[in-house]
Amino acid sequence: MHRVKVRVVEDVLDANGTIAAANRADFDRAGVRVLNLMSSPGAGKTAVLERTLSRLDGVRAGVLEGDVRGSLDADRLARLHLPVAQINTDPGFGGECHLDANMVRSALGALPLAELDLLVIENVGNLVCPAEFRVGEDARAMVFSVTEGEDKPLKYPLMFRTCELVVINKLDLLPHLDFDLDKFLYHLDQVHPGVERILVSARTGDGLDGVREWLVELAARRSES
Amino acid sequence: MHRVKVRVVEDVLDANGTIAAANRADFDRAGVRVLNLMSSPGAGKTAVLERTLSRLDGVRAGVLEGDVRGSLDADRLARLHLPVAQINTDPGFGGECHLDANMVRSALGALPLAELDLLVIENVGNLVCPAEFRVGEDARAMVFSVTEGEDKPLKYPLMFRTCELVVINKLDLLPHLDFDLDKFLYHLDQVHPGVERILVSARTGDGLDGVREWLVELAARRSES
Repeated sequence: MHRVKVRVVEDVLDANGTIAAANRADFDRAGVRVLNLMSSPGAGKTAVLERTLSRLDGVRAGVLEGDVRGSLDADRLARLHLPVAQINTDPGFGGECHLDANMVRSALGALPLAELDLLVIENVGNLVCPAEFRVGEDARAMVFSVTEGEDKPLKYPLMFRTCELVVINKLDLLPHLDFDLDKFLYHLDQVHPGVERILVSARTGDGLDGVREWLVELAARRSES
Repeated sequence: MHRVKVRVVEDVLDANGTIAAANRADFDRAGVRVLNLMSSPGAGKTAVLERTLSRLDGVRAGVLEGDVRGSLDADRLARLHLPVAQINTDPGFGGECHLDANMVRSALGALPLAELDLLVIENVGNLVCPAEFRVGEDARAMVFSVTEGEDKPLKYPLMFRTCELVVINKLDLLPHLDFDLDKFLYHLDQVHPGVERILVSARTGDGLDGVREWLVELAARRSES
């Protein structure tokens, strides 16, 4: 039984990898760099995007918005007058807990890839499943909220390990929390030593310049595929 | 391809349902009522349990602790001198995003079921997958943190719909957030009209008496299976 289950998972991941490679080839042809952005529910992915994508010097950005249901985040981002496409994962395989390469592929036709320098794929809010599925991205980043507690890197190590940038959000709440930032950073370095981190408050705007710079640099990267 | 995928999911859920029924029969024989407690990462499940289970009048409580990795929460709860067993989901099927009936079954031998009135199963922090898998519980509840935003019932409807109690936590942070509690409750009633809700701050202790009363009543329920 266990062997059969493992086999099914491997098949699913193999198929996903094939489609992710096709997505990546399309992104490369269009000359667009792609970020897979992940977090817990409510950590502030959309808020960070709202306040950074609107002012990215010389970068034409678009967003692919993943949600279990609804288009609340896509509606928020559409106000920035960026190209935004929505994927609802509700009818998907294995529940609705992540975007996979095929879901992303199905939405690409709705985006003017050749006119973009940067595409941000905002994944479903979940610290586990999204980390397991490549979608053809050049880079992975996550938003972590200090309201979630210092222990999260130890409890969800794959997510923190798979990202090359951790945006630490809601810094404005620190005075009101029993959150030890040094302890969190220590745990972060235990699971992903030296990973780049930017401390921000999407609410006050503090630190967002660092995220903008990082996104501009990502958009200017050469493809490594 | 799509048809095959759906079939696999149905098979997995069928097998899960069979094992969940076996768990439920064991719980009934032992005379223990079982709560499946769910939430996002860091919403405060463990904090709520720490501050309620230690003072439950006349109820002998135990905890089954689910985490992707580590035993941080189990260690916290063991300080209350309650029976606590740990499940790590790391090597499980489909990733590590939820507890299923078989994982719970594998841990039951580590708990003195016949000596308990109430067993709380603290699920993996995730607003999607745990809602899809019955584990043999009598009741489902969730902890929601006001830091997560008013839109979450609309974005994760299955989770909010499947629970008979929503504990709304971190009320002490309300003055520091752009969170509209009335709007959240309106969204909650849209997806689960009239569902019981208790407003608390696990940090200050406000509202936890209501949770204690609810847990005592759950422990006194007759089995409906």
